[in-house]
Amino acid sequence: MSKPVLYTYFRSSSSWRVRTALAMKGIDYEYKATHLVKGEQLSDEYKKLNPQSLIPTLLIDGQKLKQSLSILEDLEETRPDPPLLPKDPLKRSQARTVALIISADIQPIQNLRVLKAVGDEKKMEWGKNVIQSGLEALEKVLAETSGKYCVGDSVTIADLCLVPQVYNANRFKVDMSRFPIISRINEELSQLEPFIKSHPSNQPDCPEELK
Amino acid sequence: MSKPVLYTYFRSSSSWRVRTALAMKGIDYEYKATHLVKGEQLSDEYKKLNPQSLIPTLLIDGQKLKQSLSILEDLEETRPDPPLLPKDPLKRSQARTVALIISADIQPIQNLRVLKAVGDEKKMEWGKNVIQSGLEALEKVLAETSGKYCVGDSVTIADLCLVPQVYNANRFKVDMSRFPIISRINEELSQLEPFIKSHPSNQPDCPEELK
Repeated sequence: MSKPVLYTYFRSSSSWRVRTALAMKGIDYEYKATHLVKGEQLSDEYKKLNPQSLIPTLLIDGQKLKQSLSILEDLEETRPDPPLLPKDPLKRSQARTVALIISADIQPIQNLRVLKAVGDEKKMEWGKNVIQSGLEALEKVLAETSGKYCVGDSVTIADLCLVPQVYNANRFKVDMSRFPIISRINEELSQLEPFIKSHPSNQPDCPEELK
Repeated sequence: MSKPVLYTYFRSSSSWRVRTALAMKGIDYEYKATHLVKGEQLSDEYKKLNPQSLIPTLLIDGQKLKQSLSILEDLEETRPDPPLLPKDPLKRSQARTVALIISADIQPIQNLRVLKAVGDEKKMEWGKNVIQSGLEALEKVLAETSGKYCVGDSVTIADLCLVPQVYNANRFKVDMSRFPIISRINEELSQLEPFIKSHPSNQPDCPEELK
């Protein structure tokens, strides 16, 4: 079986989620840096792998997997140990819900494409507001679901989504002191080896000045 | 066990996905119309169920489930028959990928909140462009995955997401003749009883003039 290949970019939230999952599950892979700002995702060659021109794409088991949450579910089914979804049905649902609140309702709305439409003048304020209102709802959800991490005391797919979102919140200068639960969980997670390994500043394509 | 309750709105894409799943799986439920334009989702009472103030929320098995794709996964695990995810790992991944392309990368970007930021003058053009570019990528993905439906010849969660997205495409006057695969699959699905039952025009809160 050939080594998995991940098309990724150091700062991309959705790539980061998958990098953390691969690190959690101890899967070694080839890192294919795909420079989003230079537009490398728009090449004809890459579009054959991923018609959306989005990263990540994960080549694994002879397949070309797309969409981060779909990749996480696939890895969970093919490599269940250690688990990233709880066994208990309610907790499983909570983990997926938190992952989707971030991945469908916050991150895509503060992403480059929307920021361009909002315009240079207003984009920082827009991104900040989107993240802030998203985190307000998330903080209330986590008040019901969290233990040490987002859902109980084990790391789940929810946590893999949380850390990149907090990183984005800081980029947009959101006042994180308003979100004590999110901040505490983020702090806990940031000390775990797979989260350190997958952090943007530890990727080969991270520019020196951001390390 | 008490009857499940679905907080829904006739025209909401994400509610519609869940209505179709409930119909596919033959689950009877109480329909709680939640008028988004009147702001009923913003009430304190509703926020206790769903801090994001979003629909749908599904009360089932003593739980309050949120986020449509998470609800679909939960229903699949608790009520697997008939299945909405294929058994084959590659096909499962494809079904989730298509569902997420629509639910994370198209629908949220043409949703009310973003349209408001884009402004009244440009919002129709924005929504049309977002849907069109999303469907262009989706058409290419479906060229590889589809059979009679989005993934092979069985209805999956991908199809539950496709039909509401095509409905939105028509609202934004996207030229659907550019997407022959999507159009053909949508046509097939629209003839199935669960899709007819869950269609906006067949919901109790659909205004007479839209029926």
